Amino acid sequence: MSEVKEYKYIGQRSIRPDGFEKVTGRANYGSDLNLPGMIWGKILRSPHAHAKILSIDYAKAEALSGVLSIATHDDFPDLPVEAVVAGEGTANLRDLAQNLLADEKVLYHGHAILAVAAISEAIAEKAVNLVEVEYEILKPVLDIREATADDAPILHDDMFTKGLEEVPTVASNVAARTEFRKGDVEVGFADADIIIEREFYTPTVHQGYIEPHATTVSYDESGQSMVWCSTQGHFDVRASTAKLLGLSLNKLKVVASEIGGGFGGKTIVYLEPVAHILSKKSGRPVKMIMSREEVFKGSGPGSATRIWVKIGAKNDGTITAMQSNMSFEAGAFKGSPAMLGGMTIFTPYDVEHMYAECYDVVVNKPKVAAYRAPGAPQAEYAAEMVVSELAAKLDIDPIEFRLQNAAKEGTQTIYGPKMKAVGLVECLEAAKNSPHYQSALKANQGRGIAAGFWFNIGGMSSVTINMNPDGTGTIVEGSPDIGGSRASMQMMAAEATGIAMDKFKPIIADTENVAYNASTGGSRTTFATGMAVIEAGEDIVQQMKERAAAVWNVTAAQVDWIDGVAVNTAAENRLTAAEICAGVGRTGGQISGRANINARGAGPSFAVHVCDVEVDMETGKVDVIRYTAIQDAGKAIHPSYVEGQYQGGAVQGIGWALNEEYVYNEDGILQNPGFLDYRIPLASDLPMIETIIVEVPNAYHPYGVRGVGETGIIPPLAAVAYAVSDAIKAPVTDLPCSPPNVLKIIQSK
Amino acid sequence: MSEVKEYKYIGQRSIRPDGFEKVTGRANYGSDLNLPGMIWGKILRSPHAHAKILSIDYAKAEALSGVLSIATHDDFPDLPVEAVVAGEGTANLRDLAQNLLADEKVLYHGHAILAVAAISEAIAEKAVNLVEVEYEILKPVLDIREATADDAPILHDDMFTKGLEEVPTVASNVAARTEFRKGDVEVGFADADIIIEREFYTPTVHQGYIEPHATTVSYDESGQSMVWCSTQGHFDVRASTAKLLGLSLNKLKVVASEIGGGFGGKTIVYLEPVAHILSKKSGRPVKMIMSREEVFKGSGPGSATRIWVKIGAKNDGTITAMQSNMSFEAGAFKGSPAMLGGMTIFTPYDVEHMYAECYDVVVNKPKVAAYRAPGAPQAEYAAEMVVSELAAKLDIDPIEFRLQNAAKEGTQTIYGPKMKAVGLVECLEAAKNSPHYQSALKANQGRGIAAGFWFNIGGMSSVTINMNPDGTGTIVEGSPDIGGSRASMQMMAAEATGIAMDKFKPIIADTENVAYNASTGGSRTTFATGMAVIEAGEDIVQQMKERAAAVWNVTAAQVDWIDGVAVNTAAENRLTAAEICAGVGRTGGQISGRANINARGAGPSFAVHVCDVEVDMETGKVDVIRYTAIQDAGKAIHPSYVEGQYQGGAVQGIGWALNEEYVYNEDGILQNPGFLDYRIPLASDLPMIETIIVEVPNAYHPYGVRGVGETGIIPPLAAVAYAVSDAIKAPVTDLPCSPPNVLKIIQSK
Repeated sequence: MSEVKEYKYIGQRSIRPDGFEKVTGRANYGSDLNLPGMIWGKILRSPHAHAKILSIDYAKAEALSGVLSIATHDDFPDLPVEAVVAGEGTANLRDLAQNLLADEKVLYHGHAILAVAAISEAIAEKAVNLVEVEYEILKPVLDIREATADDAPILHDDMFTKGLEEVPTVASNVAARTEFRKGDVEVGFADADIIIEREFYTPTVHQGYIEPHATTVSYDESGQSMVWCSTQGHFDVRASTAKLLGLSLNKLKVVASEIGGGFGGKTIVYLEPVAHILSKKSGRPVKMIMSREEVFKGSGPGSATRIWVKIGAKNDGTITAMQSNMSFEAGAFKGSPAMLGGMTIFTPYDVEHMYAECYDVVVNKPKVAAYRAPGAPQAEYAAEMVVSELAAKLDIDPIEFRLQNAAKEGTQTIYGPKMKAVGLVECLEAAKNSPHYQSALKANQGRGIAAGFWFNIGGMSSVTINMNPDGTGTIVEGSPDIGGSRASMQMMAAEATGIAMDKFKPIIADTENVAYNASTGGSRTTFATGMAVIEAGEDIVQQMKERAAAVWNVTAAQVDWIDGVAVNTAAENRLTAAEICAGVGRTGGQISGRANINARGAGPSFAVHVCDVEVDMETGKVDVIRYTAIQDAGKAIHPSYVEGQYQGGAVQGIGWALNEEYVYNEDGILQNPGFLDYRIPLASDLPMIETIIVEVPNAYHPYGVRGVGETGIIPPLAAVAYAVSDAIKAPVTDLPCSPPNVLKIIQSK
Repeated sequence: MSEVKEYKYIGQRSIRPDGFEKVTGRANYGSDLNLPGMIWGKILRSPHAHAKILSIDYAKAEALSGVLSIATHDDFPDLPVEAVVAGEGTANLRDLAQNLLADEKVLYHGHAILAVAAISEAIAEKAVNLVEVEYEILKPVLDIREATADDAPILHDDMFTKGLEEVPTVASNVAARTEFRKGDVEVGFADADIIIEREFYTPTVHQGYIEPHATTVSYDESGQSMVWCSTQGHFDVRASTAKLLGLSLNKLKVVASEIGGGFGGKTIVYLEPVAHILSKKSGRPVKMIMSREEVFKGSGPGSATRIWVKIGAKNDGTITAMQSNMSFEAGAFKGSPAMLGGMTIFTPYDVEHMYAECYDVVVNKPKVAAYRAPGAPQAEYAAEMVVSELAAKLDIDPIEFRLQNAAKEGTQTIYGPKMKAVGLVECLEAAKNSPHYQSALKANQGRGIAAGFWFNIGGMSSVTINMNPDGTGTIVEGSPDIGGSRASMQMMAAEATGIAMDKFKPIIADTENVAYNASTGGSRTTFATGMAVIEAGEDIVQQMKERAAAVWNVTAAQVDWIDGVAVNTAAENRLTAAEICAGVGRTGGQISGRANINARGAGPSFAVHVCDVEVDMETGKVDVIRYTAIQDAGKAIHPSYVEGQYQGGAVQGIGWALNEEYVYNEDGILQNPGFLDYRIPLASDLPMIETIIVEVPNAYHPYGVRGVGETGIIPPLAAVAYAVSDAIKAPVTDLPCSPPNVLKIIQSK
């Protein structure tokens, strides 16, 4: 491991600053803002998976007493097909508007068509049911095979596959093809002693955040409006909403509520622009809350995939070539994380020859959204299953096999950069040495191990730290706190300034009070916003030294800053931060620190999970009986939160592996839009998830931080499925490993 | 006049950015915040003007169903007598706490004793009436003569006069003596051909802001609290409340509501700390709103005064000496603006010999608060009456007489600095040349002219300007907008950056989102916060140039900034602010401008008013029939607002001169706590107030701005009273010139 620095504040398990509000119920979430005169918006959703809209008649709804406004697709201005929301995220505005309120076609069961605002929820609901829509029902395509069949119904007549060598002349459900290549896999496979190839399937799954989408929007006659919503990024809500409605950014103030989970699914807008239309038309604040059923039907799940993988190795355990052909469902509009699958699928390995083809395919399901390390769990699932099978075939310990081929500092990635110091080897060693891995299995039990890679991102963050006259201060940041970033920011501000942690109050400012911050996602917040906090803290220290120097009539260079105190050793002068702040009137104005950054580089991160399962051979029911998540945090700012991220990622991955899936009937009607039928793991389903934090400092961050939020969801799919395969002594390819699916494999053996 | 710069944005009559909200009723004032679970606080007030509290029994109130908490003086921690609220204003915390909730004595009719919070206003009111207080009634002192009589009842046994040559051994109602001296008045009077001396009286008057004090305070279990209130300075509300309750500043977030007038009366706390106590004890948000009666009885009016003035002049019109002995009522606790009276009384004059003695006297009335140019209207009233009388006696035109003795650049003030360029001479010339002054009077009409001086203040202001990716931006300031400062800030930001005005949205941030700002008062906001906006704008321009330079691979010095566009002339490169903002991702983070200043110097300001009255000789009723307010704005950023300030100041001064006064009975019971009996001027009482803006740039401000809010209330007292005196041909000394008072003079002639 690299040299470890000494820190005073970071690395502690401090009390979270937002804890009180959350445990006492005072914290205000998406549905918690009520405004005087507020009314309620409800959405009419398509009962069909694929249909032309022949007519919409909302006269009866409009006539219903208490109905104050109605929104349809016609309320959007003409929008460009491929607009870029400059500097604040990009979006295909036309698709986005069509997803918010359908235009000429409905493209999935639950597709929003029209919205009504009324003085009560009940009246709005009633009005929605009074709307009469005439449809011409079309045949839906519900998976990749159907979508790519020769005679497949086409969702978008104007969509032609991008990225092909020849420009296509026929519209297709395949939106795009991308490839990543390193070396020449033909050469690699020729060099192999053993080659395994398999095709894997993963289902459509939902992020399953506990808090449904919710917003309250208030438009006023001056043209100013306020949007309150549950989001991972209120600046990007502002950008999308403004672009969709033709507003300038200073007309729209977006406030991020507390957020009850997002996992990527709250990086886009569903309700906010619609509520804005309803508010503008009615002159009233409008609240919209999705039901759980609407969340399943109308928000963006993670992609279902079909992924073919072929890997070759020598008998000595050297992997010689890795190849994949992967298709990701985008849902009704193009834009799946297929490319991210291609970038991550083989990245845990330092192998000379790699090749990945990625296809983005539209189907009659909700448009997918990001889901925790989008694309990587599905892709790396496929690769890790084959890697484990190869190790078994070669009779090499699966950890040793991975150690032998592990990516490390200097490894050339398939997508571009060479790796700086990374912690995969350290994670594998920690896994090998863990009590878990050294424990024995019993009958009907199996063990899987899998690695996971996520690159993490950086991006734009702006932070102001306003000092108060008593030496306390406020950290004004703009990154919604999903996984405890308020605590991290407080700790990093203390570390950077030497001023005690509890002197700093972190707040998530609205879009007016702080400059642009990219959304909380990609595991960027502790990395990039943290970097901005550190820079703003250093800015404060510099000013403190200047102010002390002014008081002492020396130069700032003659002032040292030691543990939050300005010291002029020569003259034995000392001024604490609080004393300097109390006296700023004599040296200038109050002190505030500022940082506006675009963090380049990020913190590539690896995890290794070990999973033991026991399979009931009569029912096919799988129990996870022991689970250990090992991951490189770079530097764990708040270890308890880091462990929580590891555990949360593992649990979501276990759910994905074992039970979660969208079930459609042949007409494309979603059969299980609720937590009773869409089964996420409960605490009672699981053992305590054991965690091991590995710390290999990230060279791109002053304290060595890597994002920790996403990598942990990647290994579980293969770790669980391979453990099942190990227990039942038969290969598993299709997820979930639900009792009927597993029983089928057992029975067909 | 000095050289006048060319400006593009400032000086226009732009649309005010807060106008829509105010005319549509959407703007939220002090009483407009309602929170879930909120309850209501009410205050028990003393029915006596002066009494010992023997016991308070609130058992019945506490037992009333719906009562959730009770606050008394015992809820305050032990407080120091003379605490300084460092960097955020000073306050005598012990007095302040005793004024908020009486301790051992009640000191005025309406003095707050106890507060109850209950689930409805009605229950809180009922509970207040169930409290039983035993008093030992004491004799009150109701004016300066009673307070300073030998056998006067003493309000505070531990108060000894400060500033005397000999340290006093006996407690006194005189809190302090201050003096200002320049030259030797004995020498000056010896040199005079004519000397006039008179004593003047001005009554207790109220600022008469339309919006009563109101607050909602929410305390939560983490120790964090939020205060929403109508205030001129939320940072100073935070400071006082925190100090009174022993909190650190980062535990308290204060949000300034829109404010319906303050005029100095909303620079201190009455309800906020009490509501905080009630909220903490009940665990509920607590709302408190004063009734109009409570505003009159329980908030701080302007000082009543007795001021003796003696002025000598030569026959040629040269004033040789000016002397005054002035006493200001402080109300129940020390701290009147007596000293400010001494600093301003003679400052319109460039006279060699001046002397002013100032006394601060406590009486059994509400503790006075600042009222628009505190101390100056009363003091300069006395001086201007004598100056006008001298002019008449010397048969010199009163404007010519003032021109002959007018303060100007280089004049040594009585309180310290020498004057830089000021506009008194220009104002007098403008008055002389005005159609009004050249018009003739009819029978029973009279004319008064008077000058007024106010130094204005600077102080601490912090501003952030956050740019958006589309080139719009938010001006984050912390100065409550009372007189249109949002518009001024917008204009100054545009002027400093060359970016169009409507691209900037000005917002008044809470105490967490921007660093310390002193209260809006002293006419400091457009001056000091404006200066911070300009500095933050210049900071933005510098960064824009650096970003453009980075794009073009040149140095920032090679980039010019012309009307909001970066230009590199050599290479014919141009980038607009919006283009730079859209591309910041490639050159760094988003751009924000910052300024934290303590504005030294200010903008001394002069006004000259001309007033014509007609007196009904049978009833003593005075009608103002024509009125012109002339004042030096330095540079009028938004002329309409400046004119509004001139007119508003004039009208308040006219009310003070004609009708306003607190009327007490002999027991100290306030007889007229309501707008029916305390008569402020209505639109129907007044002619249109004519205005003339004089612009002599202020050397202390980059655009030459002087504060304009306060000077305008100073001249009316003398302008009106002297006009009355001119009409009735008899001297007026005591205000108000109400019908009974004027009739008495007419009849006693």
